[in-house]
Amino acid sequence: MIYLDNSATTKPYPEVLDTFRKVAESHFANPSSIHGKGSEAERLLLQARSIVADLLHVHSKEIVFTSGGTEGNNLAIKGTAFQHQSRGKHLITTAVEHASTLESFKQLEDIGFEVTYLPVDAAGRISMEDLRKEVRKDTILVSMIHVNNEIGTIQPIEEAGEYLRNFPKAVFHVDHVQGLSKVPLNFKKAKVDLCTMSAHKVHGLKGSGILYVRSGVKLFPLFTGGEQEGTVRAGTENVPGVVAMAKALRVVLEKSKSGIKQLRHLQETARKELCEIDGILINTPEQNSAPHILNFSVPRIKPEVLIHTLEEEGIYISTKSACSSKAQGGSRILEAAGYGPERSEHALRVSFSFENRQDDIERLVEALEEVLPKLKSVMG
Amino acid sequence: MIYLDNSATTKPYPEVLDTFRKVAESHFANPSSIHGKGSEAERLLLQARSIVADLLHVHSKEIVFTSGGTEGNNLAIKGTAFQHQSRGKHLITTAVEHASTLESFKQLEDIGFEVTYLPVDAAGRISMEDLRKEVRKDTILVSMIHVNNEIGTIQPIEEAGEYLRNFPKAVFHVDHVQGLSKVPLNFKKAKVDLCTMSAHKVHGLKGSGILYVRSGVKLFPLFTGGEQEGTVRAGTENVPGVVAMAKALRVVLEKSKSGIKQLRHLQETARKELCEIDGILINTPEQNSAPHILNFSVPRIKPEVLIHTLEEEGIYISTKSACSSKAQGGSRILEAAGYGPERSEHALRVSFSFENRQDDIERLVEALEEVLPKLKSVMG
Repeated sequence: MIYLDNSATTKPYPEVLDTFRKVAESHFANPSSIHGKGSEAERLLLQARSIVADLLHVHSKEIVFTSGGTEGNNLAIKGTAFQHQSRGKHLITTAVEHASTLESFKQLEDIGFEVTYLPVDAAGRISMEDLRKEVRKDTILVSMIHVNNEIGTIQPIEEAGEYLRNFPKAVFHVDHVQGLSKVPLNFKKAKVDLCTMSAHKVHGLKGSGILYVRSGVKLFPLFTGGEQEGTVRAGTENVPGVVAMAKALRVVLEKSKSGIKQLRHLQETARKELCEIDGILINTPEQNSAPHILNFSVPRIKPEVLIHTLEEEGIYISTKSACSSKAQGGSRILEAAGYGPERSEHALRVSFSFENRQDDIERLVEALEEVLPKLKSVMG
Repeated sequence: MIYLDNSATTKPYPEVLDTFRKVAESHFANPSSIHGKGSEAERLLLQARSIVADLLHVHSKEIVFTSGGTEGNNLAIKGTAFQHQSRGKHLITTAVEHASTLESFKQLEDIGFEVTYLPVDAAGRISMEDLRKEVRKDTILVSMIHVNNEIGTIQPIEEAGEYLRNFPKAVFHVDHVQGLSKVPLNFKKAKVDLCTMSAHKVHGLKGSGILYVRSGVKLFPLFTGGEQEGTVRAGTENVPGVVAMAKALRVVLEKSKSGIKQLRHLQETARKELCEIDGILINTPEQNSAPHILNFSVPRIKPEVLIHTLEEEGIYISTKSACSSKAQGGSRILEAAGYGPERSEHALRVSFSFENRQDDIERLVEALEEVLPKLKSVMG
């Protein structure tokens, strides 16, 4: 199997699965229980929190464990809006966010908040000028995706964070789900207040994620109840999932040291070779883009058909974001970048992990070279 | 180890862990991906949903997978309040709910909802007369715990559901976290609209739960984003966790066929033997109580000290609910039932699973007989 859908989800590392099993089996007690077995589980949780914090260069108390990226984005956005609505009701985001961010803002619009959606250029990038124009005194939140999940565009997070220092009432949230381990982001340096991450995008397990909450930033909890996670996120902690996530993060960040360069090499090879195939148009910009995503369109050919044809060759790629893949219509992201339907409705995404090799790209290229002419002749 | 803290969490069944590993390893794709590996994961998810629905005698479309009991209660309560606030802002619950329910109502009170907390008698039970008196035309939600998590009292769910048929605008939510597999509840017969369950209380894994949402009942989603879970709960599905939960549910419901009687026998033995120990006062009522919880107070002895002393004998029991075990003060539940501080601040809970045996009770009784006099003399 040549798995090139790593932006949808990644294969858990074997050592992550081992860790999960060990903790779930031997340390199953509730970390809130006051007996020794509970304390053991609590110790593991504290240790995992400390490992994660160290790896992300933040404090343990700034780590909130969640059920994943969608929860992180929802908690950051709605949690800020509900917490600070008396300060102002203006929110800013971009036109190229993940569904979990976009729909959170749509829901907030429905209940009386005002949302500004920053436009993007042909590369899918916002301009700092637009951001500067739109931030107001009553802006309580600016939320931005770091690495776009469909085309890989990197937004100017550091510049935005720097500018937002002038607006201490505006909370700055970054969706770092696609960036984690592939496009480094120093939360402190970028003046990020809230940052969403997900375990299953970095070879951890589904159902686990992290919301970084800068010390002093307050959120209206979506889940109230027990005093877990500093009362920001109640509920019995998923200790095995959390410890497994700490493990995944440690391994993936270690791999990223040489792996990012390797990803970039794979991407450049793929870009060069795909460019030469008749009928393929590359959508991922060359500048300011992540190393693990390559998006392209094959006009006239239905992307679903191409995906299933590649599948017969053992190659797995995707259309748009997995979370939106079954929704009708073209890519919202490509439309926002100004592409017409011919391009936005025929987009495909290949996304690499540190486990992919040069061979995988060769196989993909060969397969496309072989199947595209056939599909074109069938489609007339 | 004699583990008698099963109301806090249970040990995952080995077959549940096997299932989790197998799915996480071999079917790791995102169920929203349109390629074959995605469809495989989606098929497993559909199958798990169908198994769970069959086991609970409801329809597949009525099953919403969540991250656990706290999410289920929060989504049911806030989801209903936000969805139907234009109909009315009056909500009813009881004085003996789990923290996740209580705190959801407190949060709603803070933002303008009116909440009636039904009082309970000395057994921790509400009266139908009180419920009848309090339901109004603008009541949009009645939320009730089926089996109390500290003392095991069973609320009159069927009678409440029957009465609430006269108020079609009032949504009926039941927190069935402690009842599942131990105190049968037929959702349809009891006219329940929403019902919360958690996997890790029935030997499944932490981070997984179920919210039953009766067909036609609408909720304001707490997590928006992708179209997962009928758009009521966005986010990449935790397929391995869900499949493992279906497995746990199947096994635990099979065990419950003979297991409930066995639990009752353990409880009766424990009640009888503990009653005879000087200084122990039983708090769990004899009537209308679950078979797996026995709560008692040992006035004058600090419950933490007793727990740690029993731990030295390899016996694990708890104070109040795990989610509230580190909060200051006595048991809110016992206070609501009218007990004074001497009793509510010195309460202990033993909670059984289908894995406990008569021997475990004997060991507990022996240990208490041995350590109580010593502790009393130390305490003066």
